[in-house]
Amino acid sequence: MDFITTKIDGRIAKVKLSRGDGRNALSQQTMIELRDTGLMLQDQPNITAVILYTDGGNFSAGADLADSAQFDDEANLLELRHMMKLGPDMCKAWEDIEAYTIAAIEGYCIGGASALVAAMDYRILSKNGHMRLPEIGLGINMSWQTIPRLVAQIGPARTKQYVTLSEKIEPTEALNWGLVEELTDKDKAFDSALAFAERVAALPPLPVKMTKMTVNATANALSQATSHMDRDQYMLTIQTQDFKESVAAFFEKREPSFTGN
Amino acid sequence: MDFITTKIDGRIAKVKLSRGDGRNALSQQTMIELRDTGLMLQDQPNITAVILYTDGGNFSAGADLADSAQFDDEANLLELRHMMKLGPDMCKAWEDIEAYTIAAIEGYCIGGASALVAAMDYRILSKNGHMRLPEIGLGINMSWQTIPRLVAQIGPARTKQYVTLSEKIEPTEALNWGLVEELTDKDKAFDSALAFAERVAALPPLPVKMTKMTVNATANALSQATSHMDRDQYMLTIQTQDFKESVAAFFEKREPSFTGN
Amino acid sequence: MDFITTKIDGRIAKVKLSRGDGRNALSQQTMIELRDTGLMLQDQPNITAVILYTDGGNFSAGADLADSAQFDDEANLLELRHMMKLGPDMCKAWEDIEAYTIAAIEGYCIGGASALVAAMDYRILSKNGHMRLPEIGLGINMSWQTIPRLVAQIGPARTKQYVTLSEKIEPTEALNWGLVEELTDKDKAFDSALAFAERVAALPPLPVKMTKMTVNATANALSQATSHMDRDQYMLTIQTQDFKESVAAFFEKREPSFTGN
Amino acid sequence: MDFITTKIDGRIAKVKLSRGDGRNALSQQTMIELRDTGLMLQDQPNITAVILYTDGGNFSAGADLADSAQFDDEANLLELRHMMKLGPDMCKAWEDIEAYTIAAIEGYCIGGASALVAAMDYRILSKNGHMRLPEIGLGINMSWQTIPRLVAQIGPARTKQYVTLSEKIEPTEALNWGLVEELTDKDKAFDSALAFAERVAALPPLPVKMTKMTVNATANALSQATSHMDRDQYMLTIQTQDFKESVAAFFEKREPSFTGN
Amino acid sequence: MDFITTKIDGRIAKVKLSRGDGRNALSQQTMIELRDTGLMLQDQPNITAVILYTDGGNFSAGADLADSAQFDDEANLLELRHMMKLGPDMCKAWEDIEAYTIAAIEGYCIGGASALVAAMDYRILSKNGHMRLPEIGLGINMSWQTIPRLVAQIGPARTKQYVTLSEKIEPTEALNWGLVEELTDKDKAFDSALAFAERVAALPPLPVKMTKMTVNATANALSQATSHMDRDQYMLTIQTQDFKESVAAFFEKREPSFTGN
Amino acid sequence: MDFITTKIDGRIAKVKLSRGDGRNALSQQTMIELRDTGLMLQDQPNITAVILYTDGGNFSAGADLADSAQFDDEANLLELRHMMKLGPDMCKAWEDIEAYTIAAIEGYCIGGASALVAAMDYRILSKNGHMRLPEIGLGINMSWQTIPRLVAQIGPARTKQYVTLSEKIEPTEALNWGLVEELTDKDKAFDSALAFAERVAALPPLPVKMTKMTVNATANALSQATSHMDRDQYMLTIQTQDFKESVAAFFEKREPSFTGN
Repeated sequence: MDFITTKIDGRIAKVKLSRGDGRNALSQQTMIELRDTGLMLQDQPNITAVILYTDGGNFSAGADLADSAQFDDEANLLELRHMMKLGPDMCKAWEDIEAYTIAAIEGYCIGGASALVAAMDYRILSKNGHMRLPEIGLGINMSWQTIPRLVAQIGPARTKQYVTLSEKIEPTEALNWGLVEELTDKDKAFDSALAFAERVAALPPLPVKMTKMTVNATANALSQATSHMDRDQYMLTIQTQDFKESVAAFFEKREPSFTGN
Repeated sequence: MDFITTKIDGRIAKVKLSRGDGRNALSQQTMIELRDTGLMLQDQPNITAVILYTDGGNFSAGADLADSAQFDDEANLLELRHMMKLGPDMCKAWEDIEAYTIAAIEGYCIGGASALVAAMDYRILSKNGHMRLPEIGLGINMSWQTIPRLVAQIGPARTKQYVTLSEKIEPTEALNWGLVEELTDKDKAFDSALAFAERVAALPPLPVKMTKMTVNATANALSQATSHMDRDQYMLTIQTQDFKESVAAFFEKREPSFTGN
Repeated sequence: MDFITTKIDGRIAKVKLSRGDGRNALSQQTMIELRDTGLMLQDQPNITAVILYTDGGNFSAGADLADSAQFDDEANLLELRHMMKLGPDMCKAWEDIEAYTIAAIEGYCIGGASALVAAMDYRILSKNGHMRLPEIGLGINMSWQTIPRLVAQIGPARTKQYVTLSEKIEPTEALNWGLVEELTDKDKAFDSALAFAERVAALPPLPVKMTKMTVNATANALSQATSHMDRDQYMLTIQTQDFKESVAAFFEKREPSFTGN
Repeated sequence: MDFITTKIDGRIAKVKLSRGDGRNALSQQTMIELRDTGLMLQDQPNITAVILYTDGGNFSAGADLADSAQFDDEANLLELRHMMKLGPDMCKAWEDIEAYTIAAIEGYCIGGASALVAAMDYRILSKNGHMRLPEIGLGINMSWQTIPRLVAQIGPARTKQYVTLSEKIEPTEALNWGLVEELTDKDKAFDSALAFAERVAALPPLPVKMTKMTVNATANALSQATSHMDRDQYMLTIQTQDFKESVAAFFEKREPSFTGN
Repeated sequence: MDFITTKIDGRIAKVKLSRGDGRNALSQQTMIELRDTGLMLQDQPNITAVILYTDGGNFSAGADLADSAQFDDEANLLELRHMMKLGPDMCKAWEDIEAYTIAAIEGYCIGGASALVAAMDYRILSKNGHMRLPEIGLGINMSWQTIPRLVAQIGPARTKQYVTLSEKIEPTEALNWGLVEELTDKDKAFDSALAFAERVAALPPLPVKMTKMTVNATANALSQATSHMDRDQYMLTIQTQDFKESVAAFFEKREPSFTGN
Repeated sequence: MDFITTKIDGRIAKVKLSRGDGRNALSQQTMIELRDTGLMLQDQPNITAVILYTDGGNFSAGADLADSAQFDDEANLLELRHMMKLGPDMCKAWEDIEAYTIAAIEGYCIGGASALVAAMDYRILSKNGHMRLPEIGLGINMSWQTIPRLVAQIGPARTKQYVTLSEKIEPTEALNWGLVEELTDKDKAFDSALAFAERVAALPPLPVKMTKMTVNATANALSQATSHMDRDQYMLTIQTQDFKESVAAFFEKREPSFTGN
């Protein structure tokens, strides 16, 4: 793996994402590595706590618009639609880890990265960090089966607000809403995560795993029912003029103008 | 329409309820107009934000006990029961608007009006306002399929408390519980709602609508299952002595005395 | 209304669809009339049984590919997507009639017509009739929130088979699968439906309505959750090459050739 | 107990209901004994199969209209409503027995008795027997939380038909619909039940119990959600003129005439 | 009853648990008495509010490890598993009381006692009290079908944290999370509960009961589905080395060392 | 792969399982290969139909009691429990293939093999074949999250009967119950499956995939909720005396005698 390093220390796995640029954007390659790390951790029965952290000062800028690998001109529609499973598969791979998963968030946590931590169990945000979902503002829906996870976490009204408005959520608000469970000082997210992980790791492993899986089975009981088609909504929105306009405006550094087409 | 005026301004619809008396009680005629406005707005695909506000200093006193139109002596049981669909149909008509719906609440928001805003997406309460559900105190159940909406919004414990006790909920508590999403200064509810609506209206319309509908499909997944019979509970409670006693005591300005019959 | 006539006779409403050509295809105008008839019947509290029948020897050919009104070149994406609500709204309007709804099916019952009767309560098929869903074969998904209704009615395996294969289902198989509840002789579907409706109409109306609504609330409990996005899948599929190929092949009377694009 | 005798034989409990008149109507006293027998059997961990049978040629005529104990003139509304829990509590007590419960049905199985066997696991009907739900015909709803059980068992369309029409279901139809799982010769229902029970009793007890409880948890997952208010619908319907008319017509041996009131 | 006294005062029932030692641990006998009190209160239609309180300064230490009655060496596996129903049956008996149930919590509320109050409607915690679930730390899962109740009450993330970490939750945090609904001064929990109960008791009883049951039906809609097997997880965990180690360490007053076996 | 060969032919994948002995028992190695084949097929977007067949005259004898690889004496409890995910992961891998999956069943289809085909879309059984679940008879529960799949497929009553009794289900009964969708002549299961697959493969691929996934999302909506703990029930049952007795009796070719321990 190029961007992920995993260190296993007793019952704790420490997963570091580093793109080397402090932005840690989720390129296709990065997402493959994250998904495969999640799958690998599902196969580690002796681990009870997993920390996901990044370096360079920011958790992640989310999907990487500049990542040319995302666009494969040779792919037919079926193949393109299949490629769009990577994001939800990555989130699902992390959600299904039986160990207690902890996100240590420094700086910004944007878009797909926010979706990823919504599939985790405990989120620690440094006080200079923030959360943001820019998708709607870009003309695409929030997919990756994230909406049911957010509804379970922060309720329907705040989910609508968070997903739709595409605005920054500052640490105190993130904590009050339930987007994160703990605030910590700048540069202390990993340390706080490690302290939490150590409390988990000292416990008998079997009921730790049982608890997590039952809470997930309860809280996400209807997630597949309600969101299994969101990939096709994504396929629809990326064909709209509004999406193309938002991308163009982004690269041209101007305000977009949306028409509904 | 006698009591509702709707002004459409770009992607924003501004719906004003005015009964002219500052109480804005929900007479049968008012509810028909509100329901029909909701249905009309469902048919406006280019709108992405809807504001509901009232004038005269109070959002609404809820159902209008003095509204003689509610009692049709000629109606048989089937017709009477059919008339009782008006309230839930009004709420459902507003819930199913695909645009983001925003309630601007000045002063009190009582009973059926609280049920109506529970079917909306974002609630702004002025600091001199309050929320109250008097139904249980009057001997009738809280119907209109409102209970599942409240459980999704404020959780089971606060729903029991809010619905049962029939007591005022002051702004800070309303915000903490999640009954409303924003507090604002007196007479600023509409302005705050407009500011919010403009943030929504600047976004690409298609994913805004998708988001709302998916959150609703998730949060209300079991609402019809759990509350489709609440109209028949209502039909039962309005035949009780306790309901009659509560109405009599209200008009006689005395304390009611309940027997369970 | 041009194509629908409704005759109310005591507790029974008899709704006849007649396009005058024996095909009774569901043009946009026809669907509007059917939807509005469903909504009107929701407002008839004294009716307990509704018969839907057609004339000319066939129930309905389903959506009318030749219906130019379905394609409005001026419509933007939001408006086009809104127009696509007509089919699901029509089905929902019939499903929500509180009276017991009975389909009298002579001859073929295809596509959207099969979706419509899946939203009804009792289906009588004449022995020279058949059911068929051609949608998948045409490159579009089966939408109108029909799949959950079929799963409740005929189970998951037969739903996959019926929806996917796009093949005729003959009367005996339709009965065995549960696609219809009764077979009758040619030209006797209406008479059988009337006999059934009269058994219902002789019963006390209130519990008849209660029963229907509770069975629907139970059987369709998760329908909105699982299918609320199927309209967007439809919007996606109608943009595919495969859909265009299927339409072209239909008009050119040749076999289509599908590529997955 | 006056009407119930329970004989425990190894892992099999044989419960006989005998009112001594061949009708075995469900008087209040009978229902209390049945409920208490169900609760007692929940506390027998070593039993894996339970047979419920009756004597006198008929399984049960259902609720006993002539049973004066059902009408307590002193009871206030709360107490009367509480008494109406007896039926659903009886069904629930049998449903929650962890052992495999088998109904041996000779002759007719009517109304509340049909509701009771719907809460059991396996139903054997003698070829001269039949099933019938007369409730709707009497002007009352089918309560006791029976509708979700029937929907799980025979699907939504047949549930509507069975519950609404109040007509006899003959053995072959009962088997085809799934109302019963086995037909047997006249006077052989108990023998067939015993043969089935012995097959169950020969199996390891723990997974037998696990299987039953998981199937019930799956098939009835939403039963409480969808039917918890059906007792209040019952309280409403017994106050209607149509109910009173149906009772009067029954005792006056004439056809009832229903008005919807 | 040895440890429970119930005083009924108009529409209010006051249930006092007193073991006489200030710990009020939940011995098997205590749990039987609590369960039977819950069942008895289900049969009191005229009561609308129930207070559960204890004496001696602490609400309850939870299950009583020293209670020899819990271990019956003669019991076979089926009987032992049946005995393990006592806890969930106790919680269910209290959840199903139709009256509004209020827990008055002084001092600590631990383990099974926290599970019990999660099955109640309103929780008042004195400011010197705390909540704690030690089960996972002891090597056993949190059973009694408590996890779905907690998820409905405090959301998935705090449920994972509360159940897994086995740590004290102080009053302010308990209130913020939604573990309790009200804080009160030391020794004032009963008085506050009584004041709350009196507000409930002054209301018309019928809709009070309706409200509670519908909120429960909504909030716990999937509880049986998601947790009906948790007793078997318990049966599995009590056979582990880690459970035995935790008990041994407890009695030997040393730190346990867990291996995952 | 040692036992699986996959041949891809246009839009059809033909997967053959051959252990070379005509029994095709599901050894651990076989299950790994089947799981990995399912995962591989999830990654083939251009395939729309998958046939699973075996050679040697029988579909599969199910889990291989003689497979020493299943028992790893070095594994701790966490590792052993992790190994028990292989069965459910295999079924899930096949259920989540987006293509239409068809089982061609010659001869017997037992235990885990029956669980596997329950996760597929269409089942063809040769007339000399049969289905059987021996698990309960062996003292273990039916796990692999199979029970919800069976309830969706054959309803609750037949699921209880099929799972519990551990008896052969002959072809006609299997078809009537819905355990399989088609019967065919001896040695014709593959040919029939191929004919079916070719009908699917001729259709536009995108809506074929959409249909399957939506039916699964609907029919299995609550499967994870209701069965996520069944692995722990399995862990419990394999420690019972009854399980050991059943294995011993099997190898000693005698009747087992069960005690409930």
